[in-house]
Amino acid sequence: MSDVWECYRHEIHAVEDQIRQNLDSKVTLVNTVATHILCSGGKRIRPLLLILSARLAGYTGRDDVLLASLIEYIHTATLLHDDVVDHADLRRGRKTAGGLWGNQVAILVGDYLYCKAICRIVGFHDQDVNECLSEACRKMAEGELMQLSYKDDASISEQEYLKIVEYKTGALIAAACRMGAVVADAEPALRDALFQFGLAIGVAFQVADDTLDYAAPCASLGKSLGKDLGEGHVTLPLLHLRKHCTDEERERLAAVMQKKPDGNGELTWVVSLMERYGSIDYAMETARGYVRAAKVHLELFEDSVHKRALQVVADYMVSRDH
Amino acid sequence: MSDVWECYRHEIHAVEDQIRQNLDSKVTLVNTVATHILCSGGKRIRPLLLILSARLAGYTGRDDVLLASLIEYIHTATLLHDDVVDHADLRRGRKTAGGLWGNQVAILVGDYLYCKAICRIVGFHDQDVNECLSEACRKMAEGELMQLSYKDDASISEQEYLKIVEYKTGALIAAACRMGAVVADAEPALRDALFQFGLAIGVAFQVADDTLDYAAPCASLGKSLGKDLGEGHVTLPLLHLRKHCTDEERERLAAVMQKKPDGNGELTWVVSLMERYGSIDYAMETARGYVRAAKVHLELFEDSVHKRALQVVADYMVSRDH
Repeated sequence: MSDVWECYRHEIHAVEDQIRQNLDSKVTLVNTVATHILCSGGKRIRPLLLILSARLAGYTGRDDVLLASLIEYIHTATLLHDDVVDHADLRRGRKTAGGLWGNQVAILVGDYLYCKAICRIVGFHDQDVNECLSEACRKMAEGELMQLSYKDDASISEQEYLKIVEYKTGALIAAACRMGAVVADAEPALRDALFQFGLAIGVAFQVADDTLDYAAPCASLGKSLGKDLGEGHVTLPLLHLRKHCTDEERERLAAVMQKKPDGNGELTWVVSLMERYGSIDYAMETARGYVRAAKVHLELFEDSVHKRALQVVADYMVSRDH
Repeated sequence: MSDVWECYRHEIHAVEDQIRQNLDSKVTLVNTVATHILCSGGKRIRPLLLILSARLAGYTGRDDVLLASLIEYIHTATLLHDDVVDHADLRRGRKTAGGLWGNQVAILVGDYLYCKAICRIVGFHDQDVNECLSEACRKMAEGELMQLSYKDDASISEQEYLKIVEYKTGALIAAACRMGAVVADAEPALRDALFQFGLAIGVAFQVADDTLDYAAPCASLGKSLGKDLGEGHVTLPLLHLRKHCTDEERERLAAVMQKKPDGNGELTWVVSLMERYGSIDYAMETARGYVRAAKVHLELFEDSVHKRALQVVADYMVSRDH
């Protein structure tokens, strides 16, 4: 993956410049807060995917950089609101905007970034761009609300869980990849193929992320293990475990979920149970299955350095380093 | 004004139906919360203005009803976020969405309503509609952030105060009026005239509302007097007072603002000072000046029942009953 970042470093630099250039509000507070969150070390995976998709579809212009910066604006707006929703104090090791300036500012700067992105997006005068990105935004909000509806509800089905993941994470990544095809003026089948590619790697990314919450060493992900369990989010490894464990274990599991795990003891018990029943393997294998499905959508395209880069990014989405 | 509501009751009914029809999410929570806030007795002044503007510009079709319902979606999204930002428990005498379902839900349903509106708006395939409404949304977020930047800051100028009002309240009302001209396919000068009309009555409305905060009997507005003072929002009557009172009074005023008025005594003192220096009259006269300026923009249009209705609405914006 580091080769891919290296190969496209000029493009990513251009995106970084564009992200800063877009910040032209006359309200100082807007620029200060937006810069804090926009330039806090995000990996720019969505911009990279948009640019790779554009290049794969034969684009050689510069509009992809502007669109890529706007995708990052939308992503950042959702992060600002997510941090308020999750009462988060830290993101990527830095204090959140809510922690520094208050939730009021975090909510409103999130709104601003959304709206600023939409303003620039409609400036493209392209119906496909408008529809694709507004749909993605709607799905993200709906996905987050679906997740809230199912909070503490262990009866959620695997299908419902995957729908949440598709909406809250897959939709924007799918839109990023499709946008690449759109700026390249690719034919409809290629636009759809890149959309489906993005959707599948987006789902793979979220499923892997949810699974690593029970499996990764704390340090490598910079967040504490078992966060989802504590917040009542029922994700794929837990769904698998509930399905395969004994009635007695399921009862104890329900009790742990109800009262929130209060120490490492209970979480360790849940994780050891997941390991015994193969729940973590099952969930990671599901994520890898989405990556394989994603790559099939690239078969419409001829081999190229850009196609190989997209395949590398697809694998990276389910690795422990993302 | 009641004659105007009566005269356009069929159109407003159609907007109400459209507002409900748009709510087609598969997520029950979305529809429940959105219905609560969308159907909680809002007056639909923005939809009315859009429809009156469309009729004034000669429109006889039905697209104005859909656009009017979407303007109300955007307005409602801002109310949801405002209530979280202001820690409000009640709106129009009912518990807020945040109070009933938590701030998480209020933020996300706000996001959903914004995005849902944008999705339907881009479906119009009209660049003017896209640009006008996305600009209005951006300005609203920027206006709220400007207001936050100036919190507790009595050094704000009248010009800066009016810019905040223009952005946070004028922008969407201006967009509503312009949208009427756009669906009517009116020529650019007429679109601009209706935009300027909406902007001026929007500013008039907010200035009057800010002034009535120091002047209206509690019951008639359903909110407590002096709310802005308690929240550190420096509005026009206070700006006028600070400019005209004695140094000693200004000092005591600063002290009251700093510690927030804790009883009716201090607020009564501020209000009596405003009455003595004519601050309330000055601010209300400023609002009425905007209404007069607004009406000048209607001179481009021939006399009609719709034009007279818009003039009535303009006056209504600065009345105590809005």
